[in-house]
Amino acid sequence: MAEPTVAVVGLGLIGGSLARDLAAMGTRVLGFDRDPQVLREAVAAGAVHRALGADFAEAAEADALVIAVPVSAAAEVLAAARPRLVGATLITDVGSTKRRIAAAVERLDLGGRFVGAHPFTGDHRSGWPASRAGLFRGARVFLCPSPASTPDARSLACQLWQRLGATVEITTPEEHDRRMAYVSHLPQVTSSLMGVLLGREGFRPTDLGPGGRDALRLAGSSPDVWAATVLENADRVDEALAVLQEELDGLRSALGRRDVSGVSRVFAAARAWARSGDAGA
Amino acid sequence: MAEPTVAVVGLGLIGGSLARDLAAMGTRVLGFDRDPQVLREAVAAGAVHRALGADFAEAAEADALVIAVPVSAAAEVLAAARPRLVGATLITDVGSTKRRIAAAVERLDLGGRFVGAHPFTGDHRSGWPASRAGLFRGARVFLCPSPASTPDARSLACQLWQRLGATVEITTPEEHDRRMAYVSHLPQVTSSLMGVLLGREGFRPTDLGPGGRDALRLAGSSPDVWAATVLENADRVDEALAVLQEELDGLRSALGRRDVSGVSRVFAAARAWARSGDAGA
Repeated sequence: MAEPTVAVVGLGLIGGSLARDLAAMGTRVLGFDRDPQVLREAVAAGAVHRALGADFAEAAEADALVIAVPVSAAAEVLAAARPRLVGATLITDVGSTKRRIAAAVERLDLGGRFVGAHPFTGDHRSGWPASRAGLFRGARVFLCPSPASTPDARSLACQLWQRLGATVEITTPEEHDRRMAYVSHLPQVTSSLMGVLLGREGFRPTDLGPGGRDALRLAGSSPDVWAATVLENADRVDEALAVLQEELDGLRSALGRRDVSGVSRVFAAARAWARSGDAGA
Repeated sequence: MAEPTVAVVGLGLIGGSLARDLAAMGTRVLGFDRDPQVLREAVAAGAVHRALGADFAEAAEADALVIAVPVSAAAEVLAAARPRLVGATLITDVGSTKRRIAAAVERLDLGGRFVGAHPFTGDHRSGWPASRAGLFRGARVFLCPSPASTPDARSLACQLWQRLGATVEITTPEEHDRRMAYVSHLPQVTSSLMGVLLGREGFRPTDLGPGGRDALRLAGSSPDVWAATVLENADRVDEALAVLQEELDGLRSALGRRDVSGVSRVFAAARAWARSGDAGA
């Protein structure tokens, strides 16, 4: 197919990086951000060829619409843009939870053109200033098609990310959100809680050693993004936190008994796990 | 003073790196490791000039003895080496907890020559293969003198680490162990517990994103080192884990109520803390 026109709503880390890469590949990018300064900078950087107004009127020209706002705002943007999406083959998002947007898509009867996406590539940085070319190279992108998604929508979604160097994995919103609760939201919440408690006890980030700095790095993540994310996925996140509390109970009880083999088992199991995915480095 | 002779017992990450740096500076290094292969490699690498036998007889030539074995074994090495330490001005260790070795020193009446040390520089790697030149450059080293430590012992301890490029901080065993429970043992335990839990739920390290990989990196740490460390510091570690459980309870309760401002407060406080120690990057 000819080079599509892509509208990107929200020019933060993900939306901004996506716009940069698409523009660099010759795709025509329409862009919107609620912060007019960010929108101006994205146009000045050549990442956005045409600024969308708040009514998304110009989105009618788009072959694909990418919603890249915090998950809590995505359904609202979808509803606002809906009347404009006359020509779009693909409607997608980049949110780190997938059940709520899938439900909104069903309500708005947009399932045929919708394929949800989650580029699994963020770290503790956020916003347009953190956006950069090549962010998705080598990244995994989870795609959650609707049951009704058309073959055209599905293949445009795959192409979009694969052309940016990402590897696509197809999953369901339910499976995606359970997985993220464990592999992403749990580490984020734990880092943040440790940051809060270290602050309360009078310690500063500079008091950490090299290992602690790694473990606490996510404490610096965007509060807006993360409050929205864990609230969207509250049931699954709570499930993972409940399991963590059980593990904490078990270790505290072994420590209380000065149970050497019980305590050793935890660290040995953790290292066995850590080595299960690499060459043992 | 003339270049001292230093005996290093235990050639893991810390002891091995120390021996490498000392030898490179022209210090005569006597070395011991319970693994004869490691000892041979350290001699072959030029990090150890003379291998000590298991009775530490040759330690009589040492001006300083550095005990660099896991904290649980340090007191035993100290007792075994004691009769040999006729010429030593300084007896020190590198353990990541300081109360138990301080108590052993008092029992053995070695306080005059003892200054405990903790180079705060480890990460998830361990053992002789991970040892390297320059490990202590720019690192902090906590020194815990005994009340009876002589001025000569204190200044030799400072010199030893400062010549390797480290910054020395003087503290007490009690304050040191409380601080470590929060800034080091808590992140280690949390990473390890998350590793165990992810393994149990069927996830692998390759399922993590970039942020999660940072948060879980410490799960790969040495089980021997860490079981010994948290057991030595069990009371303080348990105190920190109890605070973490309270924070977890608070967040789970806010999640359960879908309390947006309660959840947001946690992530906002965490980021404010994370930014309190750097330029906001």
